[in-house]
Amino acid sequence: MKFVCEGLVLSDAAITVSKACAARTTMPVLECIRMTAENDGVTLVAYDGELSICKKVKADVLEEGEICVNGRFFSDFIVKVSDMTVSVGTCEKGLEISYGDSRSFLQTLPASDFPKLKSEDGSDYFQVKQSAFKELIGRTVFCCATDESRPILKGCLLEAGEGKLRATALDGYRMATAECEAEGSGSLKLVCPARTLTEISRMLDDGEESLRVGVSKNMLSVTVDDTAVESRLYTGEFVNAEKIYPHEFATAVKVSKAELSESVERAIVLIRGDKNNLVLFEIKGDGILITANSEIGNVSETVKAELTGRELKIAMNGKYLLDALKVLDEETIVLSFNTPVSPFTLENENDKGNSCLILPVRTSA
Amino acid sequence: MKFVCEGLVLSDAAITVSKACAARTTMPVLECIRMTAENDGVTLVAYDGELSICKKVKADVLEEGEICVNGRFFSDFIVKVSDMTVSVGTCEKGLEISYGDSRSFLQTLPASDFPKLKSEDGSDYFQVKQSAFKELIGRTVFCCATDESRPILKGCLLEAGEGKLRATALDGYRMATAECEAEGSGSLKLVCPARTLTEISRMLDDGEESLRVGVSKNMLSVTVDDTAVESRLYTGEFVNAEKIYPHEFATAVKVSKAELSESVERAIVLIRGDKNNLVLFEIKGDGILITANSEIGNVSETVKAELTGRELKIAMNGKYLLDALKVLDEETIVLSFNTPVSPFTLENENDKGNSCLILPVRTSA
Repeated sequence: MKFVCEGLVLSDAAITVSKACAARTTMPVLECIRMTAENDGVTLVAYDGELSICKKVKADVLEEGEICVNGRFFSDFIVKVSDMTVSVGTCEKGLEISYGDSRSFLQTLPASDFPKLKSEDGSDYFQVKQSAFKELIGRTVFCCATDESRPILKGCLLEAGEGKLRATALDGYRMATAECEAEGSGSLKLVCPARTLTEISRMLDDGEESLRVGVSKNMLSVTVDDTAVESRLYTGEFVNAEKIYPHEFATAVKVSKAELSESVERAIVLIRGDKNNLVLFEIKGDGILITANSEIGNVSETVKAELTGRELKIAMNGKYLLDALKVLDEETIVLSFNTPVSPFTLENENDKGNSCLILPVRTSA
Repeated sequence: MKFVCEGLVLSDAAITVSKACAARTTMPVLECIRMTAENDGVTLVAYDGELSICKKVKADVLEEGEICVNGRFFSDFIVKVSDMTVSVGTCEKGLEISYGDSRSFLQTLPASDFPKLKSEDGSDYFQVKQSAFKELIGRTVFCCATDESRPILKGCLLEAGEGKLRATALDGYRMATAECEAEGSGSLKLVCPARTLTEISRMLDDGEESLRVGVSKNMLSVTVDDTAVESRLYTGEFVNAEKIYPHEFATAVKVSKAELSESVERAIVLIRGDKNNLVLFEIKGDGILITANSEIGNVSETVKAELTGRELKIAMNGKYLLDALKVLDEETIVLSFNTPVSPFTLENENDKGNSCLILPVRTSA
């Protein structure tokens, strides 16, 4: 293999693709980028066993061929020659990178060691605005589980149909749902790894362009500009969010999002270090009394609120509350409760497509 | 104690002063800010046993008095009320902070627990341009020792006299010296903790204003705007830099700083993880052959250089070399060597006031 190309073009591709390199693994080839030079370009691909990212760049191919090289070292190195024309080729010392009068070498692994990527050509798909999909992801993936106790919860449920795409993520303590407009091939239901959605989100811009998300039995595929992302989907039964989500409430409060956020942020300062981030709400009269206590001190604030229903005392993780407030975008929001031990919800005053649910913390008091 | 002031003013002061709070200590009072309300203002001060920072702000003092409060929590909390008018006072629950309709409390320690700060009124001083002092600090403190094996090396030697201020820092592996113009009360020699200089440097701007640095037997004091910094000086004999610094060389090379930096940066990528950051120089003919090897690969580059004297092979810590290159500011620099095991120097081509010295690494090859 041997090709010549602009360092900047190659480093952009290497950085993009290396996001799919495995970080800690016992299989060094999963930390690699596979480069394939043929015809008028070079294709770079990385795959960690779940997510693959592939990008083709123009190059002057002198000798076709392919090879694997450590993705992190290759991209870090290529960035440092991005202002030069670079010649890349295989030799007995591995991968030879020549630039200016200099040449450096990187260890390689044979391309045959790289796992076969199965592209499943499904005809199912949904189509969304890039900006809307990016927003949908941002409003839900923060609730995906990060531990392995129920692996399917490390993914986000996507349901397409009837002109809408709906996302649901939950980790056993909290849940977020969001929806946006979407076209597509019909009714689809899939669980996509949170990491895949995060990487896709990074590639999307805030524009109006449409994005086609292809779905086959076990795979999701997206192409953004020249970059193709494919990801395994999780199989198994996702939690039935409908069953969890309460539809009747004993207490509802309408409150300014900014005022509530600021109060809870102050409370959080003093309970830093407490793993439950315990914040107490006392909902009564025309406000919420927010208190937090630690050995450092205590915060006690009243935020004006419009109460409907019963008065209530409830304890919660203040960090979860702040996370949820961040993804609601109206000035006024509604919090709805039943009892001090049942889940409560946060929604925008008007647009109900996007909501969060949080389990309270049981306290002895 | 009770006073009312603008949250923004108080939070600015708390953030500035809290830089002198001790981070990990068995004496909680050293993590505190002491607040003293008297006359028309409040004085905040923090002291970690070595460095003190003191700032006075205007406030409406309703009741004079003083108290100590954890600096980190107080400044983090006050930042969150910086858009309000804040009332601060002592009560039986500790420090009461009132803002809007809310009130929060922080634990306190009695002001009498706070260590006595000795202000030594020396008449000695030197006077420098703020920008020049900032530059001098940036060019030397990175070479101060960070371990405790020879405590005096955690400081930077400052020598004032004959219209100049000269700084020297070394850690046993490398040394940096820099100088700038200065006026003053005569010949002065002191060793100032690196941390003090770093904090002073953060307060300085890049302007032409003059800074007066007061020096007494064991103390250094500086006032920048309304902020007073005092620091203990180190006592003991500093290393005699003159003795270490070679004045005759067998080999000298003149080289482009940018080209050398870029080459060494590429070499560093591949030897990441090697604690010696071993980079080899082979100086011969009209260039330096720079090589670095690791199990990941190897870099081999030639940088054009103008050689005077003997050819030489020498091994060094590439990280130290990059640090030194960063503080030289001319386009062309000169590296001067004697043997592969004796220290070598880096200087600007013209301005010799600023220089670095590095000990090479002995290799078996």
